[in-house]
Amino acid sequence: MQQFNTNEHPHRRYNPLLDEWILVSPHRTKRPWQGQKETHSTESLPEYDPTCYLCPGNERSNGTKNPEYTDCYVFENDFSALLNEEVEQNSASTSPLFKLKPERGINKVVCFSPKHNLTIPEMEIGDIEKVIQTWKEQYIELGNYDFINHVQIFENKGAVMGCSNPHPHGQIWAQSSLPTQVEKTQKNLEKYYEQNKVSLLKDYLDEELKSKERLVYENNHFAVVVPFWATWPYETMIISKRHFGTIIAMTKEETVAFAEILKTITVKYDNLFETSFPYSSGIHQAPTDRLAHPEWHFHMHFYPPLLRSATVKKFMVGYEMLGEAQRDISPEKSAAVLRELPTLHYKLK
Amino acid sequence: MQQFNTNEHPHRRYNPLLDEWILVSPHRTKRPWQGQKETHSTESLPEYDPTCYLCPGNERSNGTKNPEYTDCYVFENDFSALLNEEVEQNSASTSPLFKLKPERGINKVVCFSPKHNLTIPEMEIGDIEKVIQTWKEQYIELGNYDFINHVQIFENKGAVMGCSNPHPHGQIWAQSSLPTQVEKTQKNLEKYYEQNKVSLLKDYLDEELKSKERLVYENNHFAVVVPFWATWPYETMIISKRHFGTIIAMTKEETVAFAEILKTITVKYDNLFETSFPYSSGIHQAPTDRLAHPEWHFHMHFYPPLLRSATVKKFMVGYEMLGEAQRDISPEKSAAVLRELPTLHYKLK
Ligand SMILES: O=P(O)(O)O[C@H]1O[C@H](CO)[C@@H](O)[C@H](O)[C@H]1O
Ligand SMILES: O=P(O)(O)O[C@H]1O[C@H](CO)[C@@H](O)[C@H](O)[C@H]1O
Repeated sequence: MQQFNTNEHPHRRYNPLLDEWILVSPHRTKRPWQGQKETHSTESLPEYDPTCYLCPGNERSNGTKNPEYTDCYVFENDFSALLNEEVEQNSASTSPLFKLKPERGINKVVCFSPKHNLTIPEMEIGDIEKVIQTWKEQYIELGNYDFINHVQIFENKGAVMGCSNPHPHGQIWAQSSLPTQVEKTQKNLEKYYEQNKVSLLKDYLDEELKSKERLVYENNHFAVVVPFWATWPYETMIISKRHFGTIIAMTKEETVAFAEILKTITVKYDNLFETSFPYSSGIHQAPTDRLAHPEWHFHMHFYPPLLRSATVKKFMVGYEMLGEAQRDISPEKSAAVLRELPTLHYKLK
Repeated sequence: MQQFNTNEHPHRRYNPLLDEWILVSPHRTKRPWQGQKETHSTESLPEYDPTCYLCPGNERSNGTKNPEYTDCYVFENDFSALLNEEVEQNSASTSPLFKLKPERGINKVVCFSPKHNLTIPEMEIGDIEKVIQTWKEQYIELGNYDFINHVQIFENKGAVMGCSNPHPHGQIWAQSSLPTQVEKTQKNLEKYYEQNKVSLLKDYLDEELKSKERLVYENNHFAVVVPFWATWPYETMIISKRHFGTIIAMTKEETVAFAEILKTITVKYDNLFETSFPYSSGIHQAPTDRLAHPEWHFHMHFYPPLLRSATVKKFMVGYEMLGEAQRDISPEKSAAVLRELPTLHYKLK
């Protein structure tokens, strides 16, 4: 019988954050691709676009005019999925099969830079620090509302990730309930913390820093790894070396290190296929529910869809939707590829 | 204070099959869309394409020649994600954070018709019955292998769903383990069955047939509903009226009714935006693990991505990946739209 080899044989891996398995088919990148190609825009954008509703001084669709902002700019989303309205639910079904409840929240947009054509990998570290500073302020401000228990900071980058405007920006959705994925993660972090009296991600990171097999990059305060259980081809996670629960616990030095690692991983991403690399990213941290959360360990996920080139992405479709997430390249292989990439942006070569 | 209204106010709904919540933002379809548009192919395809590796008589990339098949044709996937190989795992990590195990399986491709340009909504009911017959045979054949415990039957339709060939076909992935989504569903069906001594989906369907609010179509043996907890804009589920666990328990009469409802829902889908409607679909049924599964109730999911038109889809990205699934139109509204659509295919008008 053949000896099992993680780079050759189909296998399943366990994601301890979500308590879910994923399928890895490392031999499968060999198949030819005749399917859909994404458009890969190589046109260069102007620093200011008069038709962009996020550029400084421009008018948004609701008539508001953006200020002539010079670094970060935050405003309430004009098409919020959540609304800051209290509503009364009179008649709710009592059936366990028809459970529904009103949800209150606030959605914001965070412009990372006044420059229309500047994404995180091309920003100065000092300017990325200002973005982090804004995230901190928003986490505090939104978390202070008595009806807000969770603040989700995220970015959709690139048309393929449903982003409708290339102006560098992210979003914040703050709400009463813990969203499904966060609740699951919290449950699993909690269980581990209770059993081991140590953060799950601290133990995990220690192993990754020892083995270095899935380590992409580290500085004094953070590390980026391709998680052992990654589902997207080049999925990564930034984990803080010190165990703290939220973005506001970061020291000044850690903030600089976080800005630096954010720049490094996104530069590596851009360099991978020499394209502005699309992804959804977001921070997972303790909720703002006024409870102690020693189990939470600050981290940031990057879920990028590209698989083989700037135009061929991984589709999480039939089997993945009905069965389980599936990947075609081993996390160790992806980590090795990302690790070797230069930290100088390809446009500056 | 305002009275809560499901067609106006943001709310969360509970999915009892997955034990997860989803976010509904019914007011949100009002936002303008400036993002990515999918390509909408209106070119008509030939009945036979000499370059298609699925057409009868043509050669596949591994050199095999397809027979001159006349209805359904099944073969082993040339680029299987799972392999039918027994491998030996010598040294496995014992850490709960690095859990991995080899997975054995068989992947098949099922061509629905010899005609390159004939999708399910345009096929005769008699020919759809042959597809169902093939699914039954495959469920038995694959389930008979001692190392196969689950048989996932599914279809990816359309380039936007990662389908690389328009020739009408689906896939079957059979494997040792229960995939993540199936295992979750089973756990929740089981819990309900133990508590209530009746199938969760039987109770659910009874309510849906009474209220008719989310009912799209029914015949004597099956119903299609937009589930109360649907995440995709026009997501539907076909549920059998009689409580049985697997496709092979279907009577002859039920098989005809299943073929009829499969045709009806896919015709309605095509009619919605007058396009060959993309989706991933698949059957959830009892596993082939030789255990009794009174909790399982045969059903089929349709996960279609289109939201506003033939070219604008819903993106499940940042918030959805990090937080929870989100929809912009209420399930009741979607059901009403689908219900009103004709059952005659738009091309035949
Ligand atoms: O097997 P295919 O059609 O080549 O591939 C398609 O379906 C598979 C099963 O859902 C996915 O894993 C692939 O990402 C998708 O492109
Ligand atoms: O809010 P935006 O950028 O208009 O919309 C984008 O991000 C949202 C949050 O992930 C998603 O719900 C939308 O489907 C997506 O198109």
